[in-house]
Amino acid sequence: MKMIDFRVRPPLKGFLKMVMYSNSERRDRFTRQLGLSPAPSAQKLSMPLLVEEMKAASVVMGVITGRVSDFLGSVDNEDVAAIVREHPGLFCGIAAVDPTNRRAAIKQIDDAIAGGFRGVNIEPGAYPAPMYADDRRLYPIYAHLEDRDIPTVIMNGGNAGPDLGYTIPIALDRVAGDFPNLRIVVSHGNWPWVTEILHVAFRRPNVYVSPDMYLHELPGMDDYVKAANGFLADRFIYGSAYPLAPLKEYADWFLKLPLRPEAMEKCIYGNAARLLRVNP
Amino acid sequence: MKMIDFRVRPPLKGFLKMVMYSNSERRDRFTRQLGLSPAPSAQKLSMPLLVEEMKAASVVMGVITGRVSDFLGSVDNEDVAAIVREHPGLFCGIAAVDPTNRRAAIKQIDDAIAGGFRGVNIEPGAYPAPMYADDRRLYPIYAHLEDRDIPTVIMNGGNAGPDLGYTIPIALDRVAGDFPNLRIVVSHGNWPWVTEILHVAFRRPNVYVSPDMYLHELPGMDDYVKAANGFLADRFIYGSAYPLAPLKEYADWFLKLPLRPEAMEKCIYGNAARLLRVNP
Amino acid sequence: MKMIDFRVRPPLKGFLKMVMYSNSERRDRFTRQLGLSPAPSAQKLSMPLLVEEMKAASVVMGVITGRVSDFLGSVDNEDVAAIVREHPGLFCGIAAVDPTNRRAAIKQIDDAIAGGFRGVNIEPGAYPAPMYADDRRLYPIYAHLEDRDIPTVIMNGGNAGPDLGYTIPIALDRVAGDFPNLRIVVSHGNWPWVTEILHVAFRRPNVYVSPDMYLHELPGMDDYVKAANGFLADRFIYGSAYPLAPLKEYADWFLKLPLRPEAMEKCIYGNAARLLRVNP
Repeated sequence: MKMIDFRVRPPLKGFLKMVMYSNSERRDRFTRQLGLSPAPSAQKLSMPLLVEEMKAASVVMGVITGRVSDFLGSVDNEDVAAIVREHPGLFCGIAAVDPTNRRAAIKQIDDAIAGGFRGVNIEPGAYPAPMYADDRRLYPIYAHLEDRDIPTVIMNGGNAGPDLGYTIPIALDRVAGDFPNLRIVVSHGNWPWVTEILHVAFRRPNVYVSPDMYLHELPGMDDYVKAANGFLADRFIYGSAYPLAPLKEYADWFLKLPLRPEAMEKCIYGNAARLLRVNP
Repeated sequence: MKMIDFRVRPPLKGFLKMVMYSNSERRDRFTRQLGLSPAPSAQKLSMPLLVEEMKAASVVMGVITGRVSDFLGSVDNEDVAAIVREHPGLFCGIAAVDPTNRRAAIKQIDDAIAGGFRGVNIEPGAYPAPMYADDRRLYPIYAHLEDRDIPTVIMNGGNAGPDLGYTIPIALDRVAGDFPNLRIVVSHGNWPWVTEILHVAFRRPNVYVSPDMYLHELPGMDDYVKAANGFLADRFIYGSAYPLAPLKEYADWFLKLPLRPEAMEKCIYGNAARLLRVNP
Repeated sequence: MKMIDFRVRPPLKGFLKMVMYSNSERRDRFTRQLGLSPAPSAQKLSMPLLVEEMKAASVVMGVITGRVSDFLGSVDNEDVAAIVREHPGLFCGIAAVDPTNRRAAIKQIDDAIAGGFRGVNIEPGAYPAPMYADDRRLYPIYAHLEDRDIPTVIMNGGNAGPDLGYTIPIALDRVAGDFPNLRIVVSHGNWPWVTEILHVAFRRPNVYVSPDMYLHELPGMDDYVKAANGFLADRFIYGSAYPLAPLKEYADWFLKLPLRPEAMEKCIYGNAARLLRVNP
């Protein structure tokens, strides 16, 4: 059995400046609020411990993602690339993009893909100037990504914006409809708009759903699981959002969910491998 | 035991031009995504097979509905009337209305009712110029319908509009509040806004809910069922949305839902019979 | 075992002018729609019977609340204060505030707190001029309340506005984020936006959730309970909304919910006692 964890932030380089590492008290409170226990590797900022925890959890690859944000902290693509390079086979990189200048954004994307990144990360509500997923500034970027068939992560859900309005999935549905060949992974699974995002995914075959930590015993959980076991079996993607959820405890919990064996295999490995074209 | 199926599109006349018949691959994919199997009658475009399937499912009457739409395909009221006429007792007609000219719309309604139609169908988001359920162009029409106590189907839910915003039930709640004596059947059950439409129905005694196919093992299902078993027992209406769901398999599944026997009888027959004043 | 009921309207003084007493038929229909039976004390407008019912339900204190509304009926703070005074230890008062003149509103708040009120009640959608929870007219009031650490009830949910749009929790999330030290009890639990308000409460530690009657066998119930048993255990507050729900039957039902004993104790007593600084 092997798993790909679609959302991992190792205690290295730029990630250490993120609020989830710089404010460990906030992070641990968050973890406990999810009903989970902080990971030793997170508390000790220990990469060797994280590698052990990944092995213990059968996580053969972690997807790590660049970020452009003020309040959450930024992670440069350079840092992500270096971490991937320095841990061969262990991580897979998704590039951040700054949407404020469309030409620079396009170059940033092309450079990242040329440099081995497997996809691009858009976080509308978390940008220094928060925007909605269907903001017109993002449309040239989506067009560029769709034309090159680049997997696109859109963080929509959870704290992904100044208020709950930023994550209402109406904007995301527009993007998915306007770019029908853009493969979109909805990071944080658009929680708490659970029934609504599942409708969007029902309607739009280009939408993948990855609730990551916003699944663990939270309201809406049963509907996510029902969908992952049914129409969404080929487009549900496992992720822990480590260090906010502990890698091992969360994986153990997930593996006990009432999913058909074929659906489980796809959710924890096959769907991400196919989407990112990796085979760890 | 007998059932009225509130949403049936037989393979006849104008219905054959609808996307659900003209694009059979899309339809069957949709059916399978629901976890169901395509009906033989749908695949063979066979009315005799459909009649057999209705009998096998104890469906004594199918409600068939006109439509004005570009992307879904239109069905003229003339076609609906002819199908009802040519299959005595088997079908009951609901008339389409084109809202773009209010005087023509009123005439269309009056002609339809005079011609034996049992209600009127409004599909705001599916009109060639999509609109919201509380669009001002619809208000003279609602007023006319309310004053004549004509049962009104409003398709709100599922793919009923260019994006998910068209089905948010806020607009529908306004209509139900502004026309408190207009009996409204929410076709597609306003899925995926399940908790929200159930609140609207809790609050507005003139709102009936018919999730039709958007019930089958989908997120929100348990809440629909809970409501149908409780406060909504007199206003929940069964429908299959055939040919998107197979008439017989879906009916068999529905009859196994954990509803009290009295609630079940109302949902599959009594509520529709009373609303449409039919007694098949 | 003892309970605090966060939402009680005794059949006394100004409460008798409210629609829930002046229109008993509407009230009883509402109660039955919840699957409950009207309380004898409500039907007989009997305070002695209510006292008996409170004792039978182990409700040692009822929170009673002033209101400024046209369609629901108003209850003056003077009436609330008199009822509290005349039934020592049995009730605890929350003051209404009229937001139309900010200076008068501030004075109203300061007078109420000086007079023994334990908190302030804001009902945005129910005001004679309905507004949203983040209406700018409310912001000076919220600021005043936050600066004085006055517990604030915001009625958001249920029929708390002309349409469902008034209760969408986006506006409430803004308020909770803009006033992070304002302790907010969301009365009616923001039903039907269940998953969404639970996200807001997950994100904002200053938000308390009290679904009161909008919990009883209604859609969303299981998610409220899951949250009350988990991350919301310290911020879920029990209430019946008597006379719309009968005090005793509802309490008996609530006590059977699958909550951990510690969570149950907090929900029915501890959280309200701590928030309002009472110890009945």
